[in-house]
Amino acid sequence: MKVLALSGGVGGAKLALGLANVLAPEDLTIMTNTGDDFTHLGLRICPDLDTVMYTLAGIANPDVGWGRKDESWDFMKSLSSIGGEDWFQLGDRDLAIHVERTRRLSEGESLSEVTAALSSKLGVRHALVPMSDDEIATVVETPEGELPFQHYFVRDRCDHHVNAVRFDGADKAALSPGIIQALADPDLGVIVICPSNPFLSVDPLLSIPGARAALKNSPAPVVAVSPIVGGRAIKGPTAKMMTEMGMPTTPSSVAKHYGDLLDGFIMDEVDGLEALAVDKLGINAILSKTIMNTLGDKMHLAEVSLNFALGLKG
Amino acid sequence: MKVLALSGGVGGAKLALGLANVLAPEDLTIMTNTGDDFTHLGLRICPDLDTVMYTLAGIANPDVGWGRKDESWDFMKSLSSIGGEDWFQLGDRDLAIHVERTRRLSEGESLSEVTAALSSKLGVRHALVPMSDDEIATVVETPEGELPFQHYFVRDRCDHHVNAVRFDGADKAALSPGIIQALADPDLGVIVICPSNPFLSVDPLLSIPGARAALKNSPAPVVAVSPIVGGRAIKGPTAKMMTEMGMPTTPSSVAKHYGDLLDGFIMDEVDGLEALAVDKLGINAILSKTIMNTLGDKMHLAEVSLNFALGLKG
Repeated sequence: MKVLALSGGVGGAKLALGLANVLAPEDLTIMTNTGDDFTHLGLRICPDLDTVMYTLAGIANPDVGWGRKDESWDFMKSLSSIGGEDWFQLGDRDLAIHVERTRRLSEGESLSEVTAALSSKLGVRHALVPMSDDEIATVVETPEGELPFQHYFVRDRCDHHVNAVRFDGADKAALSPGIIQALADPDLGVIVICPSNPFLSVDPLLSIPGARAALKNSPAPVVAVSPIVGGRAIKGPTAKMMTEMGMPTTPSSVAKHYGDLLDGFIMDEVDGLEALAVDKLGINAILSKTIMNTLGDKMHLAEVSLNFALGLKG
Repeated sequence: MKVLALSGGVGGAKLALGLANVLAPEDLTIMTNTGDDFTHLGLRICPDLDTVMYTLAGIANPDVGWGRKDESWDFMKSLSSIGGEDWFQLGDRDLAIHVERTRRLSEGESLSEVTAALSSKLGVRHALVPMSDDEIATVVETPEGELPFQHYFVRDRCDHHVNAVRFDGADKAALSPGIIQALADPDLGVIVICPSNPFLSVDPLLSIPGARAALKNSPAPVVAVSPIVGGRAIKGPTAKMMTEMGMPTTPSSVAKHYGDLLDGFIMDEVDGLEALAVDKLGINAILSKTIMNTLGDKMHLAEVSLNFALGLKG
């Protein structure tokens, strides 16, 4: 039985790590959002992809949702001192990934190929694939105008009202070979949407032509873990954005957003009152501990997600 | 009275620092060789220019002829660990210069503009200008085939017989605005060719159409300092290359190479026996201490060079 996990950054990376610890390398494909990717200082930077890669490699910074542990910042200090753009922090070790990725891309390798090579070098054993090899750029529409995603997210620390989000290039993009292969595998048994921001981390994938239908039409059940717990997001602007876009900050609101894509929905134990609302959407729901602090938490939620999905199969 | 200094890397940078310590910022233009420049890992790297810039800024590594002092190497270690090209060492702080330069160049700034901006940010007060804003690439012809300069110089540690050196792109290149301006200045009183490798650091400049004539026709006397002392080069492959190209490793051999470009030639005190040979070339010669260890040594040689040149004027 094989599993396909769809992940954004930090929350998704936690469950991806849990799944990687309960599944053999040949049984798990982890797809990451690339809508956050951008070109900065001439370097191609893939924040979600790198967060998942560093997490799986055991070298992620445990204190923040990005970058590497034991990092140094001499490049950044030097760049600041000569008046360079310093709003996006790039550690000295992290920087090597961006430089090498940019070099490989410029020589014609696809993002899938580069990702496979880099994650292998870092000791990642499970398949890590970008959602697409084509460039897709998340753009946030605000009363102050349109903003490239990282300008909204990092530079301006989400300090804008979000009217809408769109994904430039998605209409002409194709799914990456790795996700197509995972979806075509007759042994695919479960698709897990990790607890990532639906609007910023999962919608970019769903905006690729055919992607939503391919997921929905897969014989494998699709289960999602709510990123909203007790009316708040564990990390990031999910709840803030939902409020701004006129949605209740509830798990059922997330389930409704995914709609008929879902066969099952996993909510935190604190959100028991939401079960009825999700049930009314025709989506099976269960409660679980979803806040993942320890590796044990991550493995537990991975097992809960897989068992729940397998129970839906019949 | 204004001065134009022509410099390569480490040896030239020492005399450039001496000149900068005896001349006001508005009275000195330092031109550096750009034939060593290359694009590596997607970054535009200018080794000679940076050596001079770091030396003038007081942040050069005093132990080797390149890079910055108090440098860290986490980027390089990380790059090595993921299988990146690691034969050209790039320190974390140094890297910021290359990233920012590459970004500025890609946005349409000229190398002259970028160099002015970066050297100003680093606190360099004298004018530092590249020899050209056009790309000129030094290529070393060896029995093993042609080699881009940094492959010969850094990767292979000069471990090739040099048959000849050529400068790709020079025939279509123009002098930089800074050097044209310096040569056109009616107050230009002295042109100093620093003790750099004639074949690798000065010939690239002289291969630009009109450059040699512009220097020769300037009313200002041209004096060069010999990079060969007692049959050897202080640093780098000058003597080795001269042997390979069938030239005696003597100061007079360097003077002969520059030929009628020179009005005066400064040799080390140990090379007194060479005076007659240089005199026979029709070039005035003096002896001086030319090995520059201390700042005092550098300032002394700067003053010797200027006084010698001014004496030739009449």
